[in-house]
Amino acid sequence: MSTLLTNIGELTTNVGDGPLRDAAVLIDGDRISWVGSAAEAPPAADVVDAAGRAVIPGFVDSHSHLVFAGDRAAEFEARMAGQKYAAGGIRSTVAATRAATDDELRARLRGFLDEMLAQGTTTVEIKSGYGLSVSDEERLVRLAAEVTPEVTFLGAHVVPAEYAERADEYVDLVVGPMLDAAAAHSRWVDVFCETGAFTVAQSRRVLEAGIARGLMPRVHASQLGPGEGVRLAVELGAASVDHGTYLTGEDVAALAASDTVLTLLPGVEFSTRQPYPDARRLIDAGVTVALACDTNPGSSFTSSMPFCIAVAVREMGMTPTEAVWAATAGGAKALRRDDIGSVAAGMRADVVLLDAPTSIHLAYRPGVPLVAAVWKDGARVR
Amino acid sequence: MSTLLTNIGELTTNVGDGPLRDAAVLIDGDRISWVGSAAEAPPAADVVDAAGRAVIPGFVDSHSHLVFAGDRAAEFEARMAGQKYAAGGIRSTVAATRAATDDELRARLRGFLDEMLAQGTTTVEIKSGYGLSVSDEERLVRLAAEVTPEVTFLGAHVVPAEYAERADEYVDLVVGPMLDAAAAHSRWVDVFCETGAFTVAQSRRVLEAGIARGLMPRVHASQLGPGEGVRLAVELGAASVDHGTYLTGEDVAALAASDTVLTLLPGVEFSTRQPYPDARRLIDAGVTVALACDTNPGSSFTSSMPFCIAVAVREMGMTPTEAVWAATAGGAKALRRDDIGSVAAGMRADVVLLDAPTSIHLAYRPGVPLVAAVWKDGARVR
Repeated sequence: MSTLLTNIGELTTNVGDGPLRDAAVLIDGDRISWVGSAAEAPPAADVVDAAGRAVIPGFVDSHSHLVFAGDRAAEFEARMAGQKYAAGGIRSTVAATRAATDDELRARLRGFLDEMLAQGTTTVEIKSGYGLSVSDEERLVRLAAEVTPEVTFLGAHVVPAEYAERADEYVDLVVGPMLDAAAAHSRWVDVFCETGAFTVAQSRRVLEAGIARGLMPRVHASQLGPGEGVRLAVELGAASVDHGTYLTGEDVAALAASDTVLTLLPGVEFSTRQPYPDARRLIDAGVTVALACDTNPGSSFTSSMPFCIAVAVREMGMTPTEAVWAATAGGAKALRRDDIGSVAAGMRADVVLLDAPTSIHLAYRPGVPLVAAVWKDGARVR
Repeated sequence: MSTLLTNIGELTTNVGDGPLRDAAVLIDGDRISWVGSAAEAPPAADVVDAAGRAVIPGFVDSHSHLVFAGDRAAEFEARMAGQKYAAGGIRSTVAATRAATDDELRARLRGFLDEMLAQGTTTVEIKSGYGLSVSDEERLVRLAAEVTPEVTFLGAHVVPAEYAERADEYVDLVVGPMLDAAAAHSRWVDVFCETGAFTVAQSRRVLEAGIARGLMPRVHASQLGPGEGVRLAVELGAASVDHGTYLTGEDVAALAASDTVLTLLPGVEFSTRQPYPDARRLIDAGVTVALACDTNPGSSFTSSMPFCIAVAVREMGMTPTEAVWAATAGGAKALRRDDIGSVAAGMRADVVLLDAPTSIHLAYRPGVPLVAAVWKDGARVR
């Protein structure tokens, strides 16, 4: 079964120089088999007329925490009235998540995935981290693995209440029985390297233990203040270091000289009223930047990549084109994936038709649902 | 035909103290006939189970410019790369609008209205201002009047190119033949009182001429810098003065002592990178604040009231509850309407069911399409 998406006014391929005009994309099975000028398009069983509108690769959201119960609307409201964000709020979500059944967590997860698909996200990474016990962390990565290959074990999200003042003992648990239970369901290992969460030494233990089990590292760092997490991530060859709200010049230089992507999470700064990192400075220094939502009930409850693009353009100095790249190809790099994030022959057929003539409109029309249709693995899903 | 919307987890009525819990709303024809506890709800022909989710009044978007052709994505892109917003860009939209047929403008307008309904907006004010000739301004208010009673004649949007250096002559045209042609289709008269647009003296002429023809005044003022527009609006008893990005202490005091609403347009500051006005200061001073989108291709191309609510909370110091009020009851006040903007017996049945347990989620989940269902004049439209 082949589908030709034709009469595309602007096609963002993330390959070569700039978008194609008057383009077409041929989908065969779950892959893109041909990309070119609409006038030269091959025949297909099914033809979809884009009517001059824009097509982009499906968004690759490389950072989310979708397996949880409850929400923290009251905490958000208090923060907007002046209370500061602190990582400790994570514990209230842990309590709600532990109390939920598998099916309750699955239903919530499916709801978020539907919401994301409707907004053009065709790949999402999902972290554990609201279980914080061996059985609960195993459960969260197992449930995540039911819906995505990009599963991240984040047992070291925060020290749970029952290990207060015994963080090193908690790390023993994480790198021992918890990792044993979670590794089979996970592709990645992550740690929240931050004052109030885990020290650099503890973070190193967690990441090295994960690497020893065949997981690839990624790191939460420099969200709440400057620290050594970025350099640790680079040293260990992490695919991505995420947040980067507070970066030193040394961090930027280390990132620019590495293969580690810096994943910016504009929803976090938006929803915690923290200062925005300067993406312009990072890009100009040669850092590879990705954008992701960090969907979670505490610091960023958006699931909208278009919203993150708009905020990145308004607040972080990215051009609309850079932001769309960061939300697609950038996310793919942050997940070390070479089969998604661009529109070219051989890539997975994950594409989004916009109700707009250009991808600039994602930033130009903030908040407006502009996703007209979505194909994932060649199937029309919206 | 009656519809009972029941099992509402949180019902924002804008009447009395705070929202109702476990509530129900009865719709009879185009009006709400009963509001109360779900346990005491009367029977109805049709029952809709809100499943514990939140219901709010339909959004009242009291400021938009929906009748135009073309867009200005390239101008937006240049601005995000550092170019400053200037009112003169309006002229490029004027050229495109004049060149469009009635049916082209109608199709675009219907597209925007559908987009707005999908985002929960049940009432929208629409301004002319991209015609700037007698026949084109007549055409724009006529087309707007096909879709909303809240039509605003804004012939004095900017001085058109053909009147450059002859602004007073253009004002003669506006207050004479243009107003003659437009008045029958309009409820409101508006003027862009700003350096680069119209002086206070010119603005007064426009507003007084409109008032003499039975139109009610509203004013664009203090968007690009401080000026006397706010005080002119208050003096003339305008229903609303819109923008207010640069307000003096004197402006705030005048507004607080008046019946004039200050309509904030967060999409404009977002999309022009201007500083955000301090809604907290305004509300604390006793000013009535509304929120609107100002949908237009130059300074704010969002049509999303939820987006504007989220930005008003993040950037303007409003609480989520205040922002939702400003986007519903505030908009109704800005349009001097007492039949919309709240959920109570006798009001128009314009209500929105959210895919969320509270209205706080509109700010807590920025960018996420949370509108699950919309009733306008008692009919389910989404």
